Amino acid sequence: MSGMQTPAEHGAPADGRAFRRALGQFATGVTVIGTVHEGRGYAMAANSFSAVSLEPPLVLWSIRKESKSAPAFTSSGHFSINVLEEAQTAVSNALGRSHEDPLSQVDWSAGVHGDPLLSGCLAQFECTTESVVDGGDHHILVGRVERFARFEGKPLLFAQGEYGWLGRRSDTGSSQLAAAPSEEMLFMSLLRDAEQHMSTLFDSYRRQLGLTPTATRILNHLAHSSDTVEGLQRSTPIAPQAIDDSLAELMQAGLVNRAATGTWSLTEQGLARRASLRKGAEEFTARQLDNIPANDLAAAERVLAALCGR
Amino acid sequence: MSGMQTPAEHGAPADGRAFRRALGQFATGVTVIGTVHEGRGYAMAANSFSAVSLEPPLVLWSIRKESKSAPAFTSSGHFSINVLEEAQTAVSNALGRSHEDPLSQVDWSAGVHGDPLLSGCLAQFECTTESVVDGGDHHILVGRVERFARFEGKPLLFAQGEYGWLGRRSDTGSSQLAAAPSEEMLFMSLLRDAEQHMSTLFDSYRRQLGLTPTATRILNHLAHSSDTVEGLQRSTPIAPQAIDDSLAELMQAGLVNRAATGTWSLTEQGLARRASLRKGAEEFTARQLDNIPANDLAAAERVLAALCGR
Repeated sequence: MSGMQTPAEHGAPADGRAFRRALGQFATGVTVIGTVHEGRGYAMAANSFSAVSLEPPLVLWSIRKESKSAPAFTSSGHFSINVLEEAQTAVSNALGRSHEDPLSQVDWSAGVHGDPLLSGCLAQFECTTESVVDGGDHHILVGRVERFARFEGKPLLFAQGEYGWLGRRSDTGSSQLAAAPSEEMLFMSLLRDAEQHMSTLFDSYRRQLGLTPTATRILNHLAHSSDTVEGLQRSTPIAPQAIDDSLAELMQAGLVNRAATGTWSLTEQGLARRASLRKGAEEFTARQLDNIPANDLAAAERVLAALCGR
Repeated sequence: MSGMQTPAEHGAPADGRAFRRALGQFATGVTVIGTVHEGRGYAMAANSFSAVSLEPPLVLWSIRKESKSAPAFTSSGHFSINVLEEAQTAVSNALGRSHEDPLSQVDWSAGVHGDPLLSGCLAQFECTTESVVDGGDHHILVGRVERFARFEGKPLLFAQGEYGWLGRRSDTGSSQLAAAPSEEMLFMSLLRDAEQHMSTLFDSYRRQLGLTPTATRILNHLAHSSDTVEGLQRSTPIAPQAIDDSLAELMQAGLVNRAATGTWSLTEQGLARRASLRKGAEEFTARQLDNIPANDLAAAERVLAALCGR
């Protein structure tokens, strides 16, 4: 045992917003789960998927008892699970809202039980419903996998109320660079390490300012133009629930205001806060680049821009 | 409906290795779950955690029925869940193996029921056991959260048989750069975009070669020096199960051999394959850098090295 760090938030789950944020520390993939019941198709985004058993092959996920689709999913006897690929945020957003005809929103084909198998995803599981277990305000659905498919690609992630993407690290030790690396491989490894190092530094700097990445994103976006919740959802990787929570807290802090039309904008205080954040970020970055000759920096910018195809 | 891409693998779950790889497409965080039973402490790494319900506050995870710790977890009546932070791969590795005294491996303090709360993690949940549900070769444990804590930081990830880290994307649209960005902010944004663009290009190049990232990592490591499974686990982000699966397949393909001592090394064919992979990667990278003047490239390397603190 030894000294623990101080929590950012802690308590009993009755503090719903803080409890949700703590749960959000566990990263997940994103799935779309679908079924067909009484001739009608259902599909919804869910991140509660979990692999359970290999023999028999069981998986689970959970659905809000109050969801309009819950009776279909608990009665149909079968469902499909589609694991989304990193480019599929639009699919997740489209099926995160309730929709009269969700399957009209996506590109799909029908599996053995008629359940939707989405195009472009990373994995598909076709399941029969093994059991429906009580899970408080949710039903836990345990499925037995009959067929699966895996596709190449990288997963879309969900963590801390935002979509995310799988990052990479250079492997530990010297195995990558041992065999007299060429100039080119050295450059790629430097590029990755520099990006990673600067990201980590910048994260810890931002944390000192006491603003979450989500709140910072919202301030940045609204500084550019006032917008609705839907607009924020289109323009940022933040989940709708996290947008609502963050706007509520920014409003409490006097930084944002909501017009009768539903449009959010920064208050005077919000504009000032955002300007000082930006100034701080620029000063922080300038310090990192401080000892680098201006000519080198200009050359590095030309190289990076060329690599991006700009 | 429309054209589907071709799966890399598909079938019935009876093909255990392929089924596990399909399940691995769903990314997760990593937790350490602990309990105290009859005076003895238990702790194990698990990635089957899932948030279930807000009112009442319920979460779940599952444990192999054959696990030595299963009787303690299903009988003690309470457990703690610790969500690991991105720097905690060593904690996950230490508690992924069975150990006589797992809690001697980590830094912890006792929660209300005596269950271990780990230092340095992202979130902690102290639970009482609400129910134990049959899940094939696993027990599903549903817990009621009594207390939680959230800490600042980024999550450790697990996906496709490997540890991973949360990557970032620049927000869509012009909101980041709209307000006449300083030279410094422009550089940071270029650095991120260039790294992301090159990573994506390189991933698709590697995919064309028909080798998984995991297999490539193993070939690279063994080209540097022969090693045991434990050595591979220490030096790469690959999970033990995925190392075993990948070595078995590389052996089938005639690329690796196992000595009686348990040390794995590349065969002649493996060495040749690795050399051609490396050559291909260097040529690929050289093509990306082709039109960039040598002076600019050298300056960019100096800048990136300075940013890494090299």
